[in-house]
Amino acid sequence: MSRRGHRKWRNESDSTVGVVMATSILAGVELGGTKCVCVLATPTGEILAQERVDTLAPDVTLPQIKAILHQWFETRRDISALGIASFGPVDVDKASPGWGKIGQTPKAGWTGVDIVQELSAGLGVPAVLDTDVNGAALAEMRWGAAVGLADFAYVTIGTGVGVGLIVDGAPICGFGHAELGHMRIPRVAGDTWPGSCPYHGDCVEGLAAGPSIISRSGMRASLIATDDPIWTLVGHAIAQMLHNIVLSATPRRIFLGGGVITAQPQLFPIIRRELQASLNGYVSSPELDRIEEYITPPGLGTLAGPLGPIALAAALAGQATRRPAAVA
Amino acid sequence: MSRRGHRKWRNESDSTVGVVMATSILAGVELGGTKCVCVLATPTGEILAQERVDTLAPDVTLPQIKAILHQWFETRRDISALGIASFGPVDVDKASPGWGKIGQTPKAGWTGVDIVQELSAGLGVPAVLDTDVNGAALAEMRWGAAVGLADFAYVTIGTGVGVGLIVDGAPICGFGHAELGHMRIPRVAGDTWPGSCPYHGDCVEGLAAGPSIISRSGMRASLIATDDPIWTLVGHAIAQMLHNIVLSATPRRIFLGGGVITAQPQLFPIIRRELQASLNGYVSSPELDRIEEYITPPGLGTLAGPLGPIALAAALAGQATRRPAAVA
Repeated sequence: MSRRGHRKWRNESDSTVGVVMATSILAGVELGGTKCVCVLATPTGEILAQERVDTLAPDVTLPQIKAILHQWFETRRDISALGIASFGPVDVDKASPGWGKIGQTPKAGWTGVDIVQELSAGLGVPAVLDTDVNGAALAEMRWGAAVGLADFAYVTIGTGVGVGLIVDGAPICGFGHAELGHMRIPRVAGDTWPGSCPYHGDCVEGLAAGPSIISRSGMRASLIATDDPIWTLVGHAIAQMLHNIVLSATPRRIFLGGGVITAQPQLFPIIRRELQASLNGYVSSPELDRIEEYITPPGLGTLAGPLGPIALAAALAGQATRRPAAVA
Repeated sequence: MSRRGHRKWRNESDSTVGVVMATSILAGVELGGTKCVCVLATPTGEILAQERVDTLAPDVTLPQIKAILHQWFETRRDISALGIASFGPVDVDKASPGWGKIGQTPKAGWTGVDIVQELSAGLGVPAVLDTDVNGAALAEMRWGAAVGLADFAYVTIGTGVGVGLIVDGAPICGFGHAELGHMRIPRVAGDTWPGSCPYHGDCVEGLAAGPSIISRSGMRASLIATDDPIWTLVGHAIAQMLHNIVLSATPRRIFLGGGVITAQPQLFPIIRRELQASLNGYVSSPELDRIEEYITPPGLGTLAGPLGPIALAAALAGQATRRPAAVA
């Protein structure tokens, strides 16, 4: 019944048992809404190389990423695994025939693209896939502010709204991955702007992501005054999502990052205040009582994203190297 | 980091290793908002005895339950464990000093009551605690319609709204248990009734639970016509909660039961339709495509609740009996 110790996000390839060495290095690709980052790093998270590629149409972006990867793999022979951390929706269920493919997305050309096949073909190493936010959450758990935590959330507010929800040490995963950024939430009374999500209008992403802020205000977020009332509306939407996350998984901490949050730190006090007002004392815990530590920036800062695919690859490599020992 | 294989809901008592026999029987108490049920059953879920006690003040209700338990334990010497499945909020974190106690609740007199201590004292067997809905979900997983599923939700709409969210074979649990019935959701346009939840007003429970329906309509639900527009409002609230559950845990199935649902089966098509409209094709899976199987009544029917504490006790007894074998 339970698949404890064999969580789906591991996606390990059995054929690699014994091939992966603990001292080898790891390659990763973070596919984001605006940019993609190729990373080469040690299993301890030390970045050896990092290259950025703009996220355009897949027939433009993917060849550029592949060129970088192939150059690295030709130069170095000790790369043992490839981690891919992608924007969603993406099929992360290895039992599914669609494993590795991007799902229904408004990003032009990307729907149905088999990113695992595209990026790993010809490299000769096993590949592992999860969402960008699950990768970042696992990086925080391995090297950042979530070390020692088994239950927490990693939330990013940027081009989209993403949540990596870690339950009992692994990303939550049923028939697919979490898409909590598209959660349905109540509006501030009197706010009737329809929201910008092409699927849901005023879901969290439709009210709080970067493009939504531009669409509502008619200007770039960096040009909006920090005391503009729009930040209360954005903070309220995020806090309503956090209310629902607190009541679903009771995470020990919630890490809040991404482009919008990093550039608008005035959102933190708004979100904390709105969350406490919304919960209204119904649940209590020592963690929640320390709200400034509870809603907090990620420990790895802007490295959480690029280290995400490395954390995935490290788990894959770690799993494979432990196996022969267990058999012996 | 991970506590796989040692999930918190097990709460087993180490002192009982070797005492519990696989052939012994199990006692359970389901503490509900309206009634409590004491159950005596075999480890295979066959109910041997069942007694009902009204949920009144704790100094009235708890002595009645204790009298039933003590009579059973005096009559039979082969009862090996006590399962307690309680309404929430209740402290289910065994590492917490408040473990076993009812949390902040509008139920008069119950806040802070140590139900584990109260009910298990003097019985001489280990006790295990979880929420009523987590118990029912585990009963469905052991004996009902969720056999073979590791990721699903058990939702009950009755005196309150409760959700047992099973992730990778165990109830989701961070600093506490899920309280998804108090999720924040958007309203039907133009519906401004403030809701009946004393903490949140128009959270799901404040819009869809039995007392909310009575409060809004001024009459018992059984007197309301099945085609009354109120059912669309109730179904919409439930569907918005399910939208958020689908996008958080991507459960393989959602079991929907409880007094309100059982008495108002016309809610099923409303909820299914509203959920599909709300998701708007953003996520897809073979499970979701078969919406009539996806949103479905529980397999154990009204027995899911009373068998909940038995499922908890069975897990506890099973764990204890397996241990000496592992050591040997």
